[in-house]
Amino acid sequence: MTRSGLLAGPPVVPPALPDDHVMILFGATGDLARRKLLPGLFHLVVAGMMPGRYRIVGSGRPEDAPDTEAFRAHVRRALEQFGRREVRDDTWKTFAERLSFAPATADDPQALLAAVAEAEADLDPAVRRLVYLAVPPQAFAPMIDMLSASNLTERARVVIEKPFGSDLASAQALNRTLHKGFDEDQIFRIDHFLGKEAVQNILAFRFANGLFEPVWNRRHVAYVQLDVPERLTIEGRAGFFEQTGTFRDMVVTHLLHVLGFIAMEPPSRLDAKSLRDATGKVFDAIKPIEPDRAVFGQYDGYRRELGVAIGSTVETFAAVEVEVDNPRWSGVPFYLRTGKAMAASRHTVTLGFKEPARDLFARLPHDDGVAHRPNELTFELSDPGVIWVDFLAKMPGPTTTVGPASLTFRYGESFDVTNDLEAYERLLHDAMLGDHTLYTRADGIERLWEVSAPLLERAPLPLPYPQGSWGPSATEQLVAPYSWHLPYPDRPNG
Amino acid sequence: MTRSGLLAGPPVVPPALPDDHVMILFGATGDLARRKLLPGLFHLVVAGMMPGRYRIVGSGRPEDAPDTEAFRAHVRRALEQFGRREVRDDTWKTFAERLSFAPATADDPQALLAAVAEAEADLDPAVRRLVYLAVPPQAFAPMIDMLSASNLTERARVVIEKPFGSDLASAQALNRTLHKGFDEDQIFRIDHFLGKEAVQNILAFRFANGLFEPVWNRRHVAYVQLDVPERLTIEGRAGFFEQTGTFRDMVVTHLLHVLGFIAMEPPSRLDAKSLRDATGKVFDAIKPIEPDRAVFGQYDGYRRELGVAIGSTVETFAAVEVEVDNPRWSGVPFYLRTGKAMAASRHTVTLGFKEPARDLFARLPHDDGVAHRPNELTFELSDPGVIWVDFLAKMPGPTTTVGPASLTFRYGESFDVTNDLEAYERLLHDAMLGDHTLYTRADGIERLWEVSAPLLERAPLPLPYPQGSWGPSATEQLVAPYSWHLPYPDRPNG
Repeated sequence: MTRSGLLAGPPVVPPALPDDHVMILFGATGDLARRKLLPGLFHLVVAGMMPGRYRIVGSGRPEDAPDTEAFRAHVRRALEQFGRREVRDDTWKTFAERLSFAPATADDPQALLAAVAEAEADLDPAVRRLVYLAVPPQAFAPMIDMLSASNLTERARVVIEKPFGSDLASAQALNRTLHKGFDEDQIFRIDHFLGKEAVQNILAFRFANGLFEPVWNRRHVAYVQLDVPERLTIEGRAGFFEQTGTFRDMVVTHLLHVLGFIAMEPPSRLDAKSLRDATGKVFDAIKPIEPDRAVFGQYDGYRRELGVAIGSTVETFAAVEVEVDNPRWSGVPFYLRTGKAMAASRHTVTLGFKEPARDLFARLPHDDGVAHRPNELTFELSDPGVIWVDFLAKMPGPTTTVGPASLTFRYGESFDVTNDLEAYERLLHDAMLGDHTLYTRADGIERLWEVSAPLLERAPLPLPYPQGSWGPSATEQLVAPYSWHLPYPDRPNG
Repeated sequence: MTRSGLLAGPPVVPPALPDDHVMILFGATGDLARRKLLPGLFHLVVAGMMPGRYRIVGSGRPEDAPDTEAFRAHVRRALEQFGRREVRDDTWKTFAERLSFAPATADDPQALLAAVAEAEADLDPAVRRLVYLAVPPQAFAPMIDMLSASNLTERARVVIEKPFGSDLASAQALNRTLHKGFDEDQIFRIDHFLGKEAVQNILAFRFANGLFEPVWNRRHVAYVQLDVPERLTIEGRAGFFEQTGTFRDMVVTHLLHVLGFIAMEPPSRLDAKSLRDATGKVFDAIKPIEPDRAVFGQYDGYRRELGVAIGSTVETFAAVEVEVDNPRWSGVPFYLRTGKAMAASRHTVTLGFKEPARDLFARLPHDDGVAHRPNELTFELSDPGVIWVDFLAKMPGPTTTVGPASLTFRYGESFDVTNDLEAYERLLHDAMLGDHTLYTRADGIERLWEVSAPLLERAPLPLPYPQGSWGPSATEQLVAPYSWHLPYPDRPNG
């Protein structure tokens, strides 16, 4: 390996091949299927990671249902618009032959049942099923009841999109509904935010490295920040957003799960059970989130978006302080921030370290925010990923002033990431393999709604913030005396 | 600051300006003066760091003594050949006017005394003197006696080049000679190996950073390596080398001093006394170096170099294990390696960290040496300096294999180092300011000869090694079960 060169990749361990499958994709003409699921399945074909034999049965409401030919044309357009791989005719042909479409509603599944039966007749009457519910939350329960009533739950795994409930009671109700038709190990509650790559990168960094493992605790860490600003506005998704809001959409569903991996004790193994047990213990240790440790925001102009109520108090921004009250983390604040229409799009985790006891060195003048920051270890989780350590180095010259410096590691410069899977691709593959590592267990999601209850019951009114900003200024006070880790272009002296 | 941008530099703290000086440079026509000292003085002029008023009186043996005009021409050629700065006519003129030359021997200093008196008459009869002894070790004692006898020790500081003695007894004798003419605070025993920049970089890294300060001890560090291979052979310096050898030339004089800064406890302040007290405590804690923990080598062809004895057993390579027996370091081996005619030229300090208790992740196959290395923190001390952290990252793809990865910081990319001083320049400036930070105290150097005594008394015969290699293979066994930190081009998969 040369410093600038690429590693040839890991030893040739072929990816595990799922059993033969019939996949039933509800919402097959919807946005998620078009942008992520269908291109993802095609990429798995190209990567040789689909089962030896498979069929994909798309489904949707009868009113916008194409026939199979029209569906295939729809899929081809989706691949060309959103796929990351060239659509070669021969690969497309084998993929297209395995696609069919059947309309279905919770009340009328007959056409779908026939299509599934036909697909299974092609393969094996005892073939595995993967049911993907890419449908709005209000459709979950009736669909699951339909699946149970029509025995589609047999030999099946089911993937459910977020949000999983809107509070503890609704999540419990949804779990009860699911458990009528499925055992827990058949259920895959998706959290697409973290691909397995990013999670495993964090776990490898934490547990494989003798330099970093010893400092990952309250003796050395002053604070943790999970920061997921998004530049996009709600982009026409008012119907979903007005019902959900940022806290439910992002904090409960995604950020608190990331916190689980950041804060967990070393698992015994890297299997799904060990990891979910370990994150579950973190969730158990999270104290209820109080409204006075949260800032909600709403970007200027949100109420003028099509479909938003005139006086809407739905938050498009949330920042909260979370306490993990266990021996490793007691007293270390975890700050979570996410929102729409913000100044940048990032997926970062930052650990700020306590200052050393002795301060031998002069600092840059006090108006420079960077030089006065503590050491920070930051993971940029967006693919292909960056890790950096902000530290203080002596500035060249005849003084003993220290200034900001960074140690940097870029995945894309050190490893061959050209064949990397996207989060959805890996999650689809994991679900076919029955790997729950990145999926949420019933007890975990219910606990997260439980700790969120005080905040949801007494939610603060959202404060206005300008589009393209970092949210309401109260967010700065939330983290005082610390401050938010800055992306580099926004740093002083930038 | 942008990630790729340069900082504007430290706040404008003008460098301290030395008092007016008459500098007396013995060995003024020699190699060191030509390559380093005269260009260094000129660069200090360009940088505005010389005293307001100064004179430089060169001296040397009468047989090769130029007159002042010829000396000025010699200096001008030296600047053009070895200087790092353009020699502008106006700057040169002011510099040249302040240069004179006077021959001198220990027995006949009259011409020199007259030249010094003339220079001082130009400035101030009470002006400070800096005496630089760039002469062979055997000339030290008679020169110092001459300086004392002729009262040149008054108002003077004296800089002595390495090697300072060849064992404890000779170092003690040299200190006695020096102390007859000079107080300890007038004496500057030079260690040009570490510029103040590199030392202060290490100290800043250690003591200003909450992420790294906690792991800098025996609980987390498995070993330390100081590695200073040199590509050059002895390059015609057989006369010096046959008397000195690599252990005395490099290990006692340089590497053990670096060890002092790596291993020291936090000093109370960054002043010379605190730092020399702190390194002195490390030297006190070094156990005597035993011959069975050393490997000496001699490169193939050394005995055919002009001036080398036919059956010479002088070592051109030395590797030793040093123990620092104190609460911070007990049980952590410090490995020092240096030699001539080696595969690369480097100045590195590497800390290897203990492996974490749990090994959740698969490693690359065992024939890849890099993946099985522990975490290492490496300082490349050559200007402008690099710091990197070798750690393990999960390799992209569907396995949980970890592979080698590096966090990197390059001084030259983050700071403006174009006006940086070279080590000799800074040392000359420090000596004029009376700053002993990088100079060795009598007790320190005597202690280092004391701990070296067992090895010097029973020195191992040097093992042959090919030119361009990493030294005798026994050096690998010395560090087992660890291995030497590899420069990147030599890594597997390179």
